Parts: sequence; structure tokens; C-alpha cells
Amino acid sequence: MKRILFFLFVLVALSMNAQRGFAPQPVSSPEIAKNGAVTFRVKAPKADTVKLIVDSRVDTLMMRQADGTWSITLRDLEPDLYMYYYVIDGMKVLDNKNAQVLRDVSTVMNTFVLDPDGDSPVAVHDVPHGEVHAVWYDSPTLGMTRRMMIYLPPGYEASHQKYPVLYLLHGTGGDETVWLEQGRAAQILDNLIASGKAEPMIVVMPNGHTDTPTAPGLGPNNNEQPTFAHKQWMEGTFESSFNDIMTWVDNNYRTRPSKRYRAIAGLSMGGYHSLYISANQPDDFNYVGLFSAAIGRMDQGKSKIYDNLEEKLVNQFKQRPRLYWMGIGNKDFLYKDNEEFRKLLDKNRLRYTYHESGAGHEWANWRDYLVIFTQLIFK
Amino acid sequence: MKRILFFLFVLVALSMNAQRGFAPQPVSSPEIAKNGAVTFRVKAPKADTVKLIVDSRVDTLMMRQADGTWSITLRDLEPDLYMYYYVIDGMKVLDNKNAQVLRDVSTVMNTFVLDPDGDSPVAVHDVPHGEVHAVWYDSPTLGMTRRMMIYLPPGYEASHQKYPVLYLLHGTGGDETVWLEQGRAAQILDNLIASGKAEPMIVVMPNGHTDTPTAPGLGPNNNEQPTFAHKQWMEGTFESSFNDIMTWVDNNYRTRPSKRYRAIAGLSMGGYHSLYISANQPDDFNYVGLFSAAIGRMDQGKSKIYDNLEEKLVNQFKQRPRLYWMGIGNKDFLYKDNEEFRKLLDKNRLRYTYHESGAGHEWANWRDYLVIFTQLIFK
Repeated sequence: MKRILFFLFVLVALSMNAQRGFAPQPVSSPEIAKNGAVTFRVKAPKADTVKLIVDSRVDTLMMRQADGTWSITLRDLEPDLYMYYYVIDGMKVLDNKNAQVLRDVSTVMNTFVLDPDGDSPVAVHDVPHGEVHAVWYDSPTLGMTRRMMIYLPPGYEASHQKYPVLYLLHGTGGDETVWLEQGRAAQILDNLIASGKAEPMIVVMPNGHTDTPTAPGLGPNNNEQPTFAHKQWMEGTFESSFNDIMTWVDNNYRTRPSKRYRAIAGLSMGGYHSLYISANQPDDFNYVGLFSAAIGRMDQGKSKIYDNLEEKLVNQFKQRPRLYWMGIGNKDFLYKDNEEFRKLLDKNRLRYTYHESGAGHEWANWRDYLVIFTQLIFK
Repeated sequence: MKRILFFLFVLVALSMNAQRGFAPQPVSSPEIAKNGAVTFRVKAPKADTVKLIVDSRVDTLMMRQADGTWSITLRDLEPDLYMYYYVIDGMKVLDNKNAQVLRDVSTVMNTFVLDPDGDSPVAVHDVPHGEVHAVWYDSPTLGMTRRMMIYLPPGYEASHQKYPVLYLLHGTGGDETVWLEQGRAAQILDNLIASGKAEPMIVVMPNGHTDTPTAPGLGPNNNEQPTFAHKQWMEGTFESSFNDIMTWVDNNYRTRPSKRYRAIAGLSMGGYHSLYISANQPDDFNYVGLFSAAIGRMDQGKSKIYDNLEEKLVNQFKQRPRLYWMGIGNKDFLYKDNEEFRKLLDKNRLRYTYHESGAGHEWANWRDYLVIFTQLIFK
């Protein structure tokens, strides 16, 4: 009877697929070889051209085989998280053989983890895992209840310890979920803590867009779509309401609520937020991380948050932050703005750590920067 | 400068899309009118046929317009969560205008919430929201650390109260995430608690497949794909390790750890699990919910969990559970098995509540059953 019911389940599943017009295909994709070669396959007998797009890293034509399957094998990819899709005769199509998907701003893509040596910090390994909480905090400053994600280090629940806190901020296209999804923050922290390379820490991931309480679709505007174009954008409201987040976190988790045990870092817009929040609150953060930061002092006059930056930085560095870390790719469209900012720091003899990588304004860099930055803090 | 940078961001985003072969299209989809009519549009100038598939509810051809956009308007859809995709010349294609997607077993689909009257229990409303925790618990019985999701009612963190617990189990195609995603459990509980229709409760959503520690992709087998075909399946290991979950939950959350304040419910395989766990632990659950349960006593002899069911049920009902609830659709392929089970209960004069709905083995029913069941428990 068990087997009968099982086959019934499978038949229902297959027949549902068949009804929907997809006969089961003997195609496996992506197929990851032990040496790290990745083969992509998609059946499209009537197509004229099939392309494979992988992040901003690969954009290539695929080869047609006799049975109408198109395929290509990529070699020498670095261990990392990858996102990809097909373009079949100009139309974006996901890989139906791969149900793992992620959203990059408004583009949904398939995803896989490449970890041929079994030691990538972005892969899940058999190590203790931290909890992840989706919480709602009151922001009296904004008059809103807002969603936020919290990573707790393995052992938090069983211990009575207090922990340092990293505030980790997203970019213009992101929201409170993106550091956990494309950013692999939980996996990175789990792995670095397990190997003793990073200290156990709480990681707080708020939503940096003050015109919305949540990631698209999780707030009362149920069918909201992700966008780059926010009504409120880098105009001071997030920075000036940041204490609401810190207060809530210190009240609700076992934190060490002092500068010594507090870090703030962010990518792109989140780097800009980190820069201004830490400059305006020089007694609050011992560690600052600017990942491909959207620097440019573009909002002077818009909010007192952005006024007198040079003076604020000089004052901030007088309080001797243990680490002021900047990372940027040499192809990033914000490279020059970051160079200008370094000149400003240099002119004032303010000590920072600078990390220049390859590539541009992209997640491969931001995951890397998180791996580097989290090993330098709270030591 | 702010505007320049903003336009730069937008240009980069648009040009990335353009590079990928998608010129921006003046197409909006799905467009939801105030009266609840939903218009789907997709641009496919070269296509011969374009179909729209909505759950198991709609499978229809779309109409080509002069500019190569295909469209269709659906009216009279019930308020609910919907999942859909297009089939363009036989190929499954997602709606590129809608970045909201969900996975149904191994099929990724677009999704939207239809709530024309602003009162659907599955929609997000401006009410207090509960926290959702992704936790890892030790299962000594299985020798595994496993992932599980926990919903905490609004106010849990601020209160010192203890709460009742609903254990909510998924089906063969699901995992620990599915009641929160397709099931909308957090939204349903938030809404029913806010309106006073349900008692504040903790909802525990474990993973019912004992051959894996997590949903696909969240465990050490990073690129695991969802499947109906599990190595261990309805053979007693989940039921016999269930006390590990209850113990962990009672140790880590402010529960009321007694039968009076404990419920167990599940869909399909999760209904089967709920049936056998509650029958084997008659002193533990005051409320039992079987949602389209995979009943059939198919595993007698496989595990003592499944032996002597009739005797166990008689004993369970002697302990007078407050509610033994069964729901099933009149088109469900498990309808007859549920009818047989009711006959068994009737024969023994065991009192249950029976809810027969339309439709079959599908999420529209399971969301409904959760809405009904959670209003009946802990009162």
C-alpha cells in the first residue's frame, strides 16, 4: 500500500507537469563535476539561439545537440554562489531542472553554489548554525513598525553570554533579506565562527529604505515590486532613525551595548549609510566597513546628517575607531568617488585599511568583503 | 549630484537589462483592478501560442495584440494567494514584470495576492506581526541537527506570558519553509490574532523528511533539488523522533508544556504524521487537525508507530481531545481513504469534526483549513 500511494504521488506530480505541457526531460542542469566544471543544459528543439548568462561574469552562446538540447560547460569558475538564466531566442527563461532561485533586485535567476574543495565560506558546511530571526521593530522616529533580520551566532540560545553586534546594511536595490540571500551572511558567519576565524557576533540586517516597512511583498502593499526608484533615498531619514534600531536590538538581544563591541558596514548605499551614521555617532562604532560605498557627499544641505563631513570625520577618528575599512573593485563605477574619499582621509591623516579587488559593483565582491571584514572585528 | 548618481544607478540597471537582451517593455503584469479582475500581459511577438497557468485553477490561451503583447483578464477569482506562469510555444516562462516568485515542490512560479476587499486572511495587513525564527534543533533520536521554523505571536518578546503551541506539518513535496511561503501561516496567524478570532499561539514548523536536515539548498548538500522521492518516507522515523522537537521547543520558548495547550495538524503526509503522532502520544495533544491527510494505514508492520491504530485511536479518544478535525476537498485523490477513516471513527463512536470543501489536493484548501482550524483551538 505504501508503494502504491507513493507511485500515486509521483504519477500525480508527473501528470500535473505533463498537463502543463512539460514532459519529463532526461536533462540534468546544472551538473557540477568534481573538478568544478559546470555543465548547463536546456531542451529547446525549436530555438535558433540559446544564451547562458551568469551574473555579470559570463554571457555566452550555448551549443545545440542533435536531440534539441543546448549545452555548455564552464571551467575555472571560482568557488562562490552563482546566479544564471537562459535567453532563448531573446526571451529570458529559467532552468526548469533547477528549483533554486534568487532575486537580484527585480530579476529572478537560478542559483547554485560551487565548492569543489569543500571549503568555500559561502557554502553550507556541517558546522554549528546560528539562528536567523525575522523581527519587527518600532521606529518612533519614522512612525513605523519595520521588518529586520537578525543572525544569532551558534550557541546564543544555550549561553548566557553577551555578544558584539555587526550592523550590516544593503544597497539601493536591496532590502532586509538580501544579505542573507545573495550575501550568504548566515553561511559566512557560521563557517568563520566554526573555524575560529571570526568572533561569535550578532548580525543585524535592517531595511535601509525608509519609504517602506519591509522587503517587497512582505508589507501591506502585498504585490509591491522591487525597484531602484525609492521615494525617499539617501536623504537622511535612515541615518537619523538608526538609533531606533540600535535601541531595539540592545533591548531585545543580549548585546554588549558599547562602542567597543559595535561594528557597522554596508554595500553601496549601505556603505554611504555606514559612513554617515558612524561619522554622526563617533562614540558608537569601533569598526566601520565601506563596501563599494556610494560615496560622493551628494546630499550636503539636504539633512544635517550630511553637513560638515570632513569635520565630523576628524572628530570620529579622534575617538580612535579600531578599524575603518574600505573595499572596492577596480572596475566599480564608484571607484573614483572612493578614490576622492581616500584623498580626503589622507589629507587629514586619518588611518584606514584599503582593499582593492578586481571586478565591479557586484555580489562576488561584497561576499568577499564580508568574509574579510568579519575576520578583523571584535578581536 | 544626488540626482546624477541616482540616474547613474538607473542607467546601470537598465543597461544591464539591455545587455541581457531585454529592452524595457511598457507592459505591466499582473494588473489587479479594484474589482479584483486580474490582467496578465506578456510580450512575445514571435510566439504562435501563449498559455497562462494559474495553480490548478486556470489553464487558458492568451490573446495576441497588434504589438506582440499577449494578454488575458481573469474575473471572479476568490481572494487568495495565486501562483502562475506562462507557456510560450510549449516552454515555461516566468512573468518578467513580476519579481515575486514561490516554489511549489520543484516548480518555480510567479505569485500575487488578490485581496480586493482588503480583508483576506492570507494578505499582509497593517496589524501587529509575529516574529519568525529559523532555528536548528538537535534530534538525538535521528542523530542530526535539523532546521525548523517557529512563528511567535505578536507581543511574545515584550510579554512574560507562556503560550500554547501548534505543531504544523507539511506534505511530501514540502519542507520546513512551505507553511510560511505557500501556506501563508504567519500572515494568517497575524490577522486572526489581531481580530481576536484566534488565540495568540506559537506555531512550530519542522521538516518532516528525516533523510535531510533542511529544505533543499539550506543543508550541506548545497545544490540539493526538491523531490517527491525521499529515501525515508512515511516509515515511522519522523513520528518516533517527534519528542525531540517538543522537548527542544519547550526548553527554548515560553510554552505551556501540557496537552491542554498543544495542537498538532498537517497536510497530506503531515496529516498522516499528525494522526499517528497523536494516536501514539494520547496524553500530548488536545487538538488534532488532518488536512487532506494521506490516510491509509499503509505502513502496518513497518514500525510499531503504525500498528494497532484502531486500538490506539480508541485509547486516544478516551483521553477526550477537545477537537479532532478533518478537512478534505471533494475532488481530492485521497477522498476515499479519508472516507474509510471516518467510517473507522464512526464505527468506534469517536467524535470528530468534518469539513468537506470543493477542489482537490491543493494549497487553496490548506490555507483555508488553517484559517478554520486555528480559530477552533486553545479556546
